[in-house]
Order: sequence, then C-alpha cells, then structure tokens
Amino acid sequence: MTIRDASAEWQGTLKEGSGRLRLGSGVFEGAYSFPSRFENGPGTNPEELIAAAHAGCFSMALSAILGREGHVPAGIHTVAKVHLGATTAGPTITRIELETEASVAGLAANDFERLAQTAKSACLVSRALAGVAAITLKASLIIR
Amino acid sequence: MTIRDASAEWQGTLKEGSGRLRLGSGVFEGAYSFPSRFENGPGTNPEELIAAAHAGCFSMALSAILGREGHVPAGIHTVAKVHLGATTAGPTITRIELETEASVAGLAANDFERLAQTAKSACLVSRALAGVAAITLKASLIIR
Repeated sequence: MTIRDASAEWQGTLKEGSGRLRLGSGVFEGAYSFPSRFENGPGTNPEELIAAAHAGCFSMALSAILGREGHVPAGIHTVAKVHLGATTAGPTITRIELETEASVAGLAANDFERLAQTAKSACLVSRALAGVAAITLKASLIIR
Repeated sequence: MTIRDASAEWQGTLKEGSGRLRLGSGVFEGAYSFPSRFENGPGTNPEELIAAAHAGCFSMALSAILGREGHVPAGIHTVAKVHLGATTAGPTITRIELETEASVAGLAANDFERLAQTAKSACLVSRALAGVAAITLKASLIIR
C-alpha cells in the first residue's frame, strides 16, 4: 500500500478567488483560478493534472504489457486530452482522448494495437476514472 | 467545452525505464519512474497528480457552494490522500481521503458539514473518479 498526497489552498469566491496546488513530492507548486480552469488565464487546473496522470499511467502500463511479451519500447509518447463539457450535472469530464506513439522493434501493427488497447483498460487511472463516459485511444506504432 | 491536455514520455522497461510528464499549460514538467511511483524514489507519480486535481477541484467546489449561500471563505485548505492498494485487478486506487479546513465567518458547524459533503459529491473530479471505491471527507470549520 502506497499513499500519495497533494494539497490545495483557496481564498475567496469561485470567480474572483485564487488558489495554489502543491504536490506531496514537492516537485511542483503552482497557482490556479477560475480563469486558469474555465477560461484562458495563466496557471494550472485540475483537468490538465488528470491528463498528466492518465498519460503517465497509460505509458507505464503500455511498457509493462509490451515487456510481458518480450518487447522493450525505445520510446512511448502519449498525449491525454481531457474534455470538460456542460451536462445536467454541471461541468463534467465527458471524454478523455489518449493518443500514443510508440517505437518498438519487431512488433506487428495489429499486435501493437491489441496490446495498446489492453494497456488502456488495465491502466489504473483508466479504471479509477470510471465516471468518464468515454475514454478513447488512438495508437500508432512507429517503424524505424 | 474546454479541452486540457498533458503528455508523457517513457523509455524502456517498466522497472528500469524512465519518463517525463508535461502539463499542457507549461507550468510543470518533471520526471517519473517505477521508483517514484511504487517505491520511494524522487520525482512525481500519477497518484499525486490525481490528489492535486481532487484537492483543487473540491476546494473550488466548496467555495462555489458556500458562495451560493452567501458565504465567502477567507481560506480553504484541502489535502487529498490517494491510496494505492493491491487488488485482483492489480494496483488500484482503493480510496481517496479528502481533509479540508475552512475559515468562514458566520456559519454554523452543521451547515458547514452539509455544504462540504455537497461539495464532495458535486466536485467534477469526484464524479469522474467513480471507479474509486471510497472517497471520504473530513471537514473542519475554523472559528476565528
């Protein structure tokens, strides 16, 4: 069992207030606000942190699953796009798009596609995000 | 509709490989690895990013819900603790503990408790994390 933590500070109202986020490891602390979350203001927001968690988890999961079949990835690059839309429940993460490119020697494209889809399902962040209606994956194998 | 993104790079095997995470806003980029995720190595990990997203979202939601009843929080401090445990599905986020302290003038403790529980349910990150078996909240009202 591992426990990881982070903290948030917030002062003031939703729209005029401001906050700071701090990762438990200490490697990042930064500002967030209504504009950085729902408009185009500078700073971070919870949705891009979820995107980073998901892209990071998926990439490790893909490496693990490739490894079980004897493949060591030279490189995996994954982008996660978190869509925030309006629903009857209020602002809601309606969709997460994962887009991955991997450089793996000696692997057929259809085997790669199968393993990438397995990584999407197995990734523990995908499983935690069961409230997100759609998690999609576009996987590209880079042949060098 | 807003789309937020982040990316991950990974090279090598699960245990010996290494990666980097980058937030779409550009405010943070950092290293992660098997040791930083599952052991005590330096760097970040997806679970503390989820913790930051959750603490940040909950704190804004609490400010919003207090505001609807005419209360402006002088300060909200929230810690999120993400528990990673072993289940039959593999490593799994089994529980997230939210602990919040808020300084709000003129509010009764039982009203605060009710509003804090509403914020926990309404927070869009809580709703996205429907695959997490338990999300708990300990809320403390600071009287000054």
